Amino acid sequence: MAIKFELIKKSNKSNARRGRLYTPHGVIETPVFMPVGTQATVKAIMHRDLYEMGTQIILANTYHLYLRPGIDVIKEAGGLHRFMNWQKPILTDSGGFQVFSLGKLRTITDDGVEFRSHIDGSRHFFTPEKVIEIQNILGSDIIMAFDECVPYPVDHEYAKWAVERTARWLKRCKAHHKNTENQALFGIVQGSTYKDLRIESAKRTIEEDLPGYAIGGLSVGEPKELMYEMIEVLHPILPEDKPRYLMGVGTPDCLYESVIRGVDMFDCVFATRTARNGTVFTKEGRMIIKNAQYAKDFRPIEEDCDCYTCQNFTRAYLRHLIKAEEILGAILLSIHNVRFLLRFMEKLRKDIEEDRI
Amino acid sequence: MAIKFELIKKSNKSNARRGRLYTPHGVIETPVFMPVGTQATVKAIMHRDLYEMGTQIILANTYHLYLRPGIDVIKEAGGLHRFMNWQKPILTDSGGFQVFSLGKLRTITDDGVEFRSHIDGSRHFFTPEKVIEIQNILGSDIIMAFDECVPYPVDHEYAKWAVERTARWLKRCKAHHKNTENQALFGIVQGSTYKDLRIESAKRTIEEDLPGYAIGGLSVGEPKELMYEMIEVLHPILPEDKPRYLMGVGTPDCLYESVIRGVDMFDCVFATRTARNGTVFTKEGRMIIKNAQYAKDFRPIEEDCDCYTCQNFTRAYLRHLIKAEEILGAILLSIHNVRFLLRFMEKLRKDIEEDRI
Repeated sequence: MAIKFELIKKSNKSNARRGRLYTPHGVIETPVFMPVGTQATVKAIMHRDLYEMGTQIILANTYHLYLRPGIDVIKEAGGLHRFMNWQKPILTDSGGFQVFSLGKLRTITDDGVEFRSHIDGSRHFFTPEKVIEIQNILGSDIIMAFDECVPYPVDHEYAKWAVERTARWLKRCKAHHKNTENQALFGIVQGSTYKDLRIESAKRTIEEDLPGYAIGGLSVGEPKELMYEMIEVLHPILPEDKPRYLMGVGTPDCLYESVIRGVDMFDCVFATRTARNGTVFTKEGRMIIKNAQYAKDFRPIEEDCDCYTCQNFTRAYLRHLIKAEEILGAILLSIHNVRFLLRFMEKLRKDIEEDRI
Repeated sequence: MAIKFELIKKSNKSNARRGRLYTPHGVIETPVFMPVGTQATVKAIMHRDLYEMGTQIILANTYHLYLRPGIDVIKEAGGLHRFMNWQKPILTDSGGFQVFSLGKLRTITDDGVEFRSHIDGSRHFFTPEKVIEIQNILGSDIIMAFDECVPYPVDHEYAKWAVERTARWLKRCKAHHKNTENQALFGIVQGSTYKDLRIESAKRTIEEDLPGYAIGGLSVGEPKELMYEMIEVLHPILPEDKPRYLMGVGTPDCLYESVIRGVDMFDCVFATRTARNGTVFTKEGRMIIKNAQYAKDFRPIEEDCDCYTCQNFTRAYLRHLIKAEEILGAILLSIHNVRFLLRFMEKLRKDIEEDRI
């Protein structure tokens, strides 16, 4: 079955969009937040809890899975869904962001990127073709093109160079993609924080006529206002009938600001990472559960939260678990934070439907 | 409601016993394995999974909870059940084993034990009275007397001295116990691996006429045969109508050998600790899931196991999680190992009922 996007409603008060993305593993209501399962597991959360809390799709990382357990293992398992027994849609990134983040451990040529494994130092070479081949084996519902993600700040010249390379690589990705029926290839718009480059990158990406478009290279250290500006620049250019995915963004404020600017999909490790460090989201802002003030606080994190954690445990108990470095602390705070973002998106979807934003 | 033990059936082929222990938080079918929740959490397992896998009672540690979160916190929460929101019975140990294990960090006098916290080095003093007072606040269904647990090997003279001190301390524990209606105080038989001392310790413990008796100071390094011998020596001495708890024992072979020698209750951290290290129980012995042979093994740990892990995941995926040091690996292997022991005990109970052992 081919991946299809349906635009259900456009907000009258903002650029927000309410959509529906049909994939071989299920329908995704957008705007959507995708919990990150880098190594084929959303850190510290059981599959059952992910389903129960309303997770629609998870993200996994090509770079990590390629290195460990290795693509041969996942191939023999029959793909990533089977390997990890995840029944809902999966999006895999291309590994571009990871290999470009390796710094001295990688060398970029126009052919691809040579890099050393962060695990054992072994040498590897990623090309656009290879990255698509890997993702074809993974069998994820949405696969990402291999792009050059530049750091922030970067000069205009290099950013332009990266935009051009990303465009050339996209053509190679598209040409090599073997499973267009069951896996949607998304192109990635780069261009750092330069409006002209974002526009150029968007146009060259759209030329390939893909089932979806991502906005990459943001949330990498630039001021939030610049990020929002880039999204605004792209709004009228990106085709209305295709989903838009803002990569690596997932704090409540950024989700809101991006949704009203027309973004449909998001992912971010922040919710789970910060949970493992003992910080939780609340409607009033972040709560550092280790703080002494919660030692005898027998209320849940949030009175009106419907997550397993808030339904069952107190701040005092959670504080104890985190201070005692108990795994259950990481589990329970991760559940709350992910559910918080999923609920946040549920509310945004409703608000769009009812024209409140 | 007072704690009550009912002996349902005695095996005709061994000393095995099938019993039922009534507590304020529920009925416990014996022989029973009690998962250990040292710091008010069974490591890496959610409460929900513990209930679902048939956990009847968990153990928690007075020493650890006293140091962190502190008894004032648990008191204000309304006791340990409420603090951790655990709905079934809890047994707390006295902290004796822990403080005696501190080595140079503690000083023993007849009054009690002065020790330094393993967390922050702060000084504390445990007496029989204090330990009972703490457990009265914790509100656990079964509380343990403060005993002197000697290491193995130890000379007869010191072991005898410890037996006498344990007997004197038991009197003080009993005299200080304020909540006999809802909390059953168990005495602990010591005596190292000396038959005469075990007999003496048992007699002096039984004199106090308590609702249950524990066998302590075993599984501390002595050969298993010596442990079984001690249990055999105690079998005719310990009153038939009271539960017998062998402390710190919980490998399948030891559980079996002890059950047929008349033991009713067990606890051990081994199942969860070894799971976190990547080793799982199977009917054919232990399986080190990290081993290369499981890289492409797409079978569950055990085909006929009914645990969440075996019902959903393959050895290959579990191996990947453990190798990638993912928390989900610790969770899933812990669930399997604890469920393995609970099933093992379920089968033993059935075997006793049907006179097969």
